[in-house]
Amino acid sequence: MNKKQLFDHIKSKKSFLCVGLDPDLKKIPKHLLETEDPIFEFNKAIIDATLPYAIAYKPNIAFYESLGIHGWQALKKTIEYIPKEVFTIADAKRGDIGNTSYKYAETFFKKMSFDAITLSPYMGQDSIIPFLDYKDKWAILLASTSNIGALDFQELMIENSGGQKVYQKVIEISSQWGSDQNLMYVVGATRVSTLNHIRKIIPDHFLLIPGIGAQGGDLDVVCKYAMNNSGGLIINSARNIIYANNTVDFAHHAGLAAAQLQAQMAAAIIKYEKW
Amino acid sequence: MNKKQLFDHIKSKKSFLCVGLDPDLKKIPKHLLETEDPIFEFNKAIIDATLPYAIAYKPNIAFYESLGIHGWQALKKTIEYIPKEVFTIADAKRGDIGNTSYKYAETFFKKMSFDAITLSPYMGQDSIIPFLDYKDKWAILLASTSNIGALDFQELMIENSGGQKVYQKVIEISSQWGSDQNLMYVVGATRVSTLNHIRKIIPDHFLLIPGIGAQGGDLDVVCKYAMNNSGGLIINSARNIIYANNTVDFAHHAGLAAAQLQAQMAAAIIKYEKW
Repeated sequence: MNKKQLFDHIKSKKSFLCVGLDPDLKKIPKHLLETEDPIFEFNKAIIDATLPYAIAYKPNIAFYESLGIHGWQALKKTIEYIPKEVFTIADAKRGDIGNTSYKYAETFFKKMSFDAITLSPYMGQDSIIPFLDYKDKWAILLASTSNIGALDFQELMIENSGGQKVYQKVIEISSQWGSDQNLMYVVGATRVSTLNHIRKIIPDHFLLIPGIGAQGGDLDVVCKYAMNNSGGLIINSARNIIYANNTVDFAHHAGLAAAQLQAQMAAAIIKYEKW
Repeated sequence: MNKKQLFDHIKSKKSFLCVGLDPDLKKIPKHLLETEDPIFEFNKAIIDATLPYAIAYKPNIAFYESLGIHGWQALKKTIEYIPKEVFTIADAKRGDIGNTSYKYAETFFKKMSFDAITLSPYMGQDSIIPFLDYKDKWAILLASTSNIGALDFQELMIENSGGQKVYQKVIEISSQWGSDQNLMYVVGATRVSTLNHIRKIIPDHFLLIPGIGAQGGDLDVVCKYAMNNSGGLIINSARNIIYANNTVDFAHHAGLAAAQLQAQMAAAIIKYEKW
């Protein structure tokens, strides 16, 4: 999917919402455990209920990988089930030397036809380039993450950089490897103070923002500081939507939670819209 | 496996050799493609031939993941085939927020019983802790990697740190999260100048050293600077061993290549031994 298609979808749904598909057998409604493929049944119901409000889905690969072969099968079925106009992100946080990264790109872009994959920037340019070689596919680099551990290294100040922190340097340098047509960045919603700094370095790139809801981020503030003239935001919510309710009505409640977030997004678009 | 068991194995084999099991269907001998499980058959033959000389095996997960379900099956069979006294490393370079990292730990330590996993430090402490909660399992953090992209971020100088670079700060800070009994670090053999610095920060930890051979590192120099009084080294070689030859005799040649490296290690142990 290219940037224009993604933006058109955002405009038509008045939504930046990405639903995190992180299914856990210990947390999904009990009645699903009796079905042949509980993970896929759960995802399918969540997708059906949230599709009017969501422009993207983001399965975190750990949740599938931990289930072994059945998990990978459920992941593949899930991705095939999501309509083509919806943006799909493999939240994999991969990154390895060049010949290995090519293998990861093949897995997620060719074998499973995801639109995007999240990557760790630590190993530098040659670990990212293999993902940028695919037309209309996206590499989403970790920049400033939403967890407490983000403070350990991402916030270290770089010498002789005019006051830049590691995550800013990561964005500044890596944004030269591709363009706003194939690179995005993960910026936690809990780090709102960083959004302003980031928009000065990359005004045009999309940001993937986790941490709304369960992790405490504020949607309105994120939109205020980070929306740009091509949308510029994909805001992820997982637990607050997919585990909104644990009964046979779970999908209905997931839909309500997604609708509520989408309504907040539509309001923020009216308030801060720049396109 | 605990540190003493690993060291005993090193002493008994006079070897630090880790064989990288990175099988590629395009590179393995053609006759194996006719077998039911070419990847496992390849690995099995390589393991049989190199076991007298190797103290560890390190499958890079990308090579298995890219083959889908068959790849995961081959990986599981491979790990089960490796004798228990041999150290096994899942080269996965994972790392995610806490609840997700727990899933990855479960996958590689419980479902597949690896002894160790490689991790990216970018997301900080809570992304690593879930792996340290397992007794006699190891987290191996990327510090100074062997690829050219290592220069992009790992070598940036941190302000007011007494001249420390990012990778040194990563080691200094993260080494407080665990101990030399459950943490190791990846340090590329192509970055020999870094080994001296690193040994001043962590004299007792094991280092996993890739980049010998195909990537140009020098074994003798690595041993000189980084061996410590409990061995302290696991030196990985993949392509130079597993693709030493491409005929029906591939395993024999892999064994010869491994034997040659082990002989160099035995010589280096005599020269620099500190135990």
